[in-house]
Amino acid sequence: MKYNQYSYLPVSEKQMLSELNNLNFKLSKRNSDKDNLEIFIRHTLFHYDDKEYALANLIADFETDLMTFFRSDLALSAEIFDMVALQLLGFTPHFDFTDTAAFVREVGLPVRYQGDQIIPSLYRLLLCRMKKGMTLLDDLISKGLLPLSNSYHFFNGKSLATFDTCRLIREVVYVETPLDTDKDGQPDLVKVNIIRHHTTEALPTIMTASPYHQGINIPANDRKLHKMEGELSVKTAQKIAVKEPKFTKLPLSDEQLPQGAAEETFSYIDSYGLNDYFLARGFANIYVSGIGTAGSDGFMTSGDYRQIESFKSVIDWLNGRAAAYSSPRRDKKVLASWASGLVATTGKSYLGTMSTGLATTGVAGLKVIIAESGISSWYDYYRENGLVYSPGGYPGEDLDVLTELTYSRNLLPGDYLRHNRSYQHLLDEQSASLKRSSGDYSQFWHDRNYLPHARKIDCTAVYTHGLQDWNVKPRQVYNIYKALPDHIQKHLFLHQGEHVYVHNWQSLDFRESMNTLLSEKMLGQPDHFSLPAVIWQDNSTEQTWQSLKDLEADSQVRLSLGKEQQQVDNHYNSADFVRYGADFNSFKADLFAGKANQITVDFILEESIFLNGEINLHLTLKSNSNRGLLSAQLLDYGLKKRLADQPRIIEGNAIDNGQNFAREALRELPLQKTAHRVLTKGAINLQNREDLLIVKAVEPDKWMTVSFKLQPSLYKLLKGDTLRLLLYTTDFEHTVRDNSAYTLTVDLSKSYLEIPILLSDSVE
Amino acid sequence: MKYNQYSYLPVSEKQMLSELNNLNFKLSKRNSDKDNLEIFIRHTLFHYDDKEYALANLIADFETDLMTFFRSDLALSAEIFDMVALQLLGFTPHFDFTDTAAFVREVGLPVRYQGDQIIPSLYRLLLCRMKKGMTLLDDLISKGLLPLSNSYHFFNGKSLATFDTCRLIREVVYVETPLDTDKDGQPDLVKVNIIRHHTTEALPTIMTASPYHQGINIPANDRKLHKMEGELSVKTAQKIAVKEPKFTKLPLSDEQLPQGAAEETFSYIDSYGLNDYFLARGFANIYVSGIGTAGSDGFMTSGDYRQIESFKSVIDWLNGRAAAYSSPRRDKKVLASWASGLVATTGKSYLGTMSTGLATTGVAGLKVIIAESGISSWYDYYRENGLVYSPGGYPGEDLDVLTELTYSRNLLPGDYLRHNRSYQHLLDEQSASLKRSSGDYSQFWHDRNYLPHARKIDCTAVYTHGLQDWNVKPRQVYNIYKALPDHIQKHLFLHQGEHVYVHNWQSLDFRESMNTLLSEKMLGQPDHFSLPAVIWQDNSTEQTWQSLKDLEADSQVRLSLGKEQQQVDNHYNSADFVRYGADFNSFKADLFAGKANQITVDFILEESIFLNGEINLHLTLKSNSNRGLLSAQLLDYGLKKRLADQPRIIEGNAIDNGQNFAREALRELPLQKTAHRVLTKGAINLQNREDLLIVKAVEPDKWMTVSFKLQPSLYKLLKGDTLRLLLYTTDFEHTVRDNSAYTLTVDLSKSYLEIPILLSDSVE
Repeated sequence: MKYNQYSYLPVSEKQMLSELNNLNFKLSKRNSDKDNLEIFIRHTLFHYDDKEYALANLIADFETDLMTFFRSDLALSAEIFDMVALQLLGFTPHFDFTDTAAFVREVGLPVRYQGDQIIPSLYRLLLCRMKKGMTLLDDLISKGLLPLSNSYHFFNGKSLATFDTCRLIREVVYVETPLDTDKDGQPDLVKVNIIRHHTTEALPTIMTASPYHQGINIPANDRKLHKMEGELSVKTAQKIAVKEPKFTKLPLSDEQLPQGAAEETFSYIDSYGLNDYFLARGFANIYVSGIGTAGSDGFMTSGDYRQIESFKSVIDWLNGRAAAYSSPRRDKKVLASWASGLVATTGKSYLGTMSTGLATTGVAGLKVIIAESGISSWYDYYRENGLVYSPGGYPGEDLDVLTELTYSRNLLPGDYLRHNRSYQHLLDEQSASLKRSSGDYSQFWHDRNYLPHARKIDCTAVYTHGLQDWNVKPRQVYNIYKALPDHIQKHLFLHQGEHVYVHNWQSLDFRESMNTLLSEKMLGQPDHFSLPAVIWQDNSTEQTWQSLKDLEADSQVRLSLGKEQQQVDNHYNSADFVRYGADFNSFKADLFAGKANQITVDFILEESIFLNGEINLHLTLKSNSNRGLLSAQLLDYGLKKRLADQPRIIEGNAIDNGQNFAREALRELPLQKTAHRVLTKGAINLQNREDLLIVKAVEPDKWMTVSFKLQPSLYKLLKGDTLRLLLYTTDFEHTVRDNSAYTLTVDLSKSYLEIPILLSDSVE
Repeated sequence: MKYNQYSYLPVSEKQMLSELNNLNFKLSKRNSDKDNLEIFIRHTLFHYDDKEYALANLIADFETDLMTFFRSDLALSAEIFDMVALQLLGFTPHFDFTDTAAFVREVGLPVRYQGDQIIPSLYRLLLCRMKKGMTLLDDLISKGLLPLSNSYHFFNGKSLATFDTCRLIREVVYVETPLDTDKDGQPDLVKVNIIRHHTTEALPTIMTASPYHQGINIPANDRKLHKMEGELSVKTAQKIAVKEPKFTKLPLSDEQLPQGAAEETFSYIDSYGLNDYFLARGFANIYVSGIGTAGSDGFMTSGDYRQIESFKSVIDWLNGRAAAYSSPRRDKKVLASWASGLVATTGKSYLGTMSTGLATTGVAGLKVIIAESGISSWYDYYRENGLVYSPGGYPGEDLDVLTELTYSRNLLPGDYLRHNRSYQHLLDEQSASLKRSSGDYSQFWHDRNYLPHARKIDCTAVYTHGLQDWNVKPRQVYNIYKALPDHIQKHLFLHQGEHVYVHNWQSLDFRESMNTLLSEKMLGQPDHFSLPAVIWQDNSTEQTWQSLKDLEADSQVRLSLGKEQQQVDNHYNSADFVRYGADFNSFKADLFAGKANQITVDFILEESIFLNGEINLHLTLKSNSNRGLLSAQLLDYGLKKRLADQPRIIEGNAIDNGQNFAREALRELPLQKTAHRVLTKGAINLQNREDLLIVKAVEPDKWMTVSFKLQPSLYKLLKGDTLRLLLYTTDFEHTVRDNSAYTLTVDLSKSYLEIPILLSDSVE
């Protein structure tokens, strides 16, 4: 384990003492440090009447148990403090360590005791994470240090788990939206699942906007998958124009109706660990799936501003600006009288996408978005540079497939009976407007692009993303982060994993950082928390994070691709073509082994570099046909230990999100030997070589210059490492599988890579 | 999904009606079936005030929603009942099925409605499992159909989840044992973690005896692992004699001490799903780790009757026959005044082993053991036929390694400080008495063999075991089951997985069967529950279980190994020898591919057979040395779909063990294509060819006849299937790795397999 602690809020010693005594530690500056240490530890042993027995099970050093030490007149030393601190943090002498000093250095224990002034050390110790991933204080509260009072308690600006998660109010309301996406002549209602506490406190809300949450329809999804085999179409030259997306909002019903309590309850909804963590700390949790999902009205518009509006309406309701009904009967209104109106959104992937979309509406009440692995432009999810480009792992998926997956109204048999016919009609319209044959940007995709609206974001924006995420690719977060307006507070956590959460990792205090942030923004805690702008996981070692000022490179390296001309054939014999299509991993295996139709260029690095941003690929090439696509991947090549892209469980049920509530496993990316790692990839339709919005003809056998940016990354490479560039046409995981016999010729002497790098490590 | 329902208890219709109305279903024989159905469903919709909305989301047939149906004068038919029943059980029309009748047949839905008498159908429906693995009734109670009353409610002889698992008493007591295994002159105390309810009911107890539960010491375990490389020693010819194991019990302290409540509490202990299930149903849970574990006194004797006695003492305490102290100070006694004294034990592997050991003491109060994948003789776990034979997956492990792993007292630094020296001394004694060089049975192993004491078992015995468990091998359960006395009630669940639990599988109502059994044995419910003796998972198809009368074969097949003589060399070139030793899986891969030093004999089956029991391997062979070992494996060979040996998660958090308590994933063994499957294996030291207790010399180049039994199995093979027999010497996973150059010659013409089979499928 290594400590990377960002959540600590510096406070005065006077403040420390009063916060400690609010927890009944009863410390005093008049006591000796040794006495304060004993008082502190005895207070942590509240499970034991026989505290001497418990103290005798701990040691002060390898010769003295702690009870004996306290009874003796041996002096308290820094070494003894370290030994005791490590034990309180869950590290076991003889088992986790034998050399205390070396171990303290190795893990980078953030708390020290210099031989006087123990109170700041004890305060800091409570905020240190234990081996099992909880802070010592959270663990003590989980065990009952504080009673469940359903009122707020704070320590170091963090809300504590003093809210009862056994007895909760779980209710459903139906929020009215200014939409009629299913065209039934009535405003669409959206179902809201609310989990809140029995308290008189005005509650802030954690909202997860999740189209998945009311169920997913996998059979319909699979039936809808598109065939990747087919010809790359030749597009007519044109300039593509798009305009501001807009939709007309229906007037909301101003009918005077009786008001009352919710009429529908529920007992369980699949929840998300970070939400559970905040629930126990006095944040109501709400789950909304939006239009086109089970229990709600409407069509599944998948990513446009009508879908966003259906989530925005819920925030409006929490702030008294929209109506909610007690049932789809629409005959009784329910007020969010329990809510403070302040909202933070959470969730990964599609859920994080909705957070960004919501933020771009600038809706009042939304204070923070925590958007994990989210999409900022749907074109970049299903298309690339004028090509159909399936998300990694999902060839054949497209936006209408996602619509089938998430239109959970069809999972309610009665709703299916009444509305499936009209749904199928709307779905056909949506499928038609995808224009898979072209792969071009269009109004349809522009309506699902949040980047042009980023300037309207007015809340604090927190992003997390994996640099090995080939499903929602790194460009999605890179673009939105760079588009955020200067005046707002922004934070970006970039990890080396794939499409995964980070709140339950051992090496990073993400939960506690978010707690400090949300307590400041939504619960009026002191506003002097300074979290770095960019927190990046160093790929070169385990459990190590670094903070960066921003995402800017300060230099670049240019690598020429070679001297001669090389060719790539697009055509494969039918056996290989069928095999690759049946299992795209067999294609990737051949590609990485140099056995596919490809140009392979190796570079041995003469200097260590810190790749930082989007690598620009400049090519001079020609096609012997009137069309062509080019795919590229860049590998960190050669057998060595690298971080895995999937977190491994370190200890199951290690993390308690409250007081015995929603326990989850502690995880971390392990180091493992791999033959290579994909640093970045990309593809382009040669007809879109000049600009995404300009479609040009490809003249057979005529040289063209093509420049395009590969996916951004932050990655450290060492002198002597091998970079391997792969240039090829069809990518059986991502692109159309066109087996026609055309050939690309690349003039390597006129082709090069531009690699943005960071010279100054610029660690804040 | 397929239904295999064993837990249903037949009751009269009068009884059904009264039980239904105890749940406030308010059904009446005076109502029409259609009215009773509507009353029934409306009562299940207690989360909705707007029941018409909820009813309109269900359908009666593919053209009519349920609300419309109830309002219409359409008649209730068997087809409509099936459609409604499937929806209540969590199956979704269009999604899970389109042909209702075909689906009902496919899953084997256990409830039918014949057009009249709906009350028995509704009663049965509540007891059917839903798609997600809970019965409909358990799901309704999980959602709040009944309040948490901390009192017992029964339905169909099963205790219901009406006990509050949020507010529980979690306390620790220290039970006195008549042992002084750490030789400190004081009776060893064992720590007991108790989880019980706030209730005045006298509680039955679920006890899990788990030496692992206070922590395991993996570094010490790994340091202790034995080197497998070495020479197979030549043993002096002898007859081995053993005597009754015994140990002297210390007198218990009769000191008059004050009595009072427990003084130590805890907030969490890693629990086991089946225990959680019973906790919510009014069974106290206790976890005991026994002597030599953290918080307890004593040495880790690993499997002998002193360790068993330390668990037995806890049952004695629950029945007022032993003392417990409030702390290791031993100055205040705590009575188990909350306990009824009736105990059932649970747990897998070592935990199941302790259940069997406890049962053989015949201790009063122990009513049922549920022993999963347990050991019945420790010799059979670490040795075989005169050989050291490591458990599958753990070469180099031995009983003293397990002692290091489980001696968790050393995880308490203070205890380590005070007692590690004496522990190391006792550990060295234990290691010495293992006599790894011989591999023979001995008094040491006899002291850890529960089979000779099986006749003393007086409780109901339930066993579960995997036929692909090469860690705790199938012989362990086979022997104990056959050794159980006739007069007790016994049940055996044999599944096709490896070392895994079965309580959370979709295809088997194990939880509900155990509930019915324990409610009968420990809560005074009617005693007419008839559970089959042997419930066996059919390997030839998914989710299919069959009941058998017993474990007896009724016929046998004899297969000759061939005509010629063949040789097996023991020696490998050093490259292979090192590679196999570094990774035993590389050896297994070569062995299964026929590339190791081996004799391979294939048999094409001329008839389908149902293997049932222990295959007897008869060999005529000679060694060109004065020693030799022979290993054998029998494979079901050839690429085909077989059940995997690991359950796969079907749905996470699907199973609620109470009312939102300890949710767990629903699992099942999937079918998957594999190249072969190990049916059975075994090994023998040629010096022990006559009998385990008779060590004879091996005369070089002299023919010997060797007969030994391979691990038992129950497995169906079809006409045309290939059985592949592998004969070899060193098994790099299990046996000593002796690379000396000797050769075994087998006369195949005088060698054969005797395969016990079941002709009459004898399904009850």
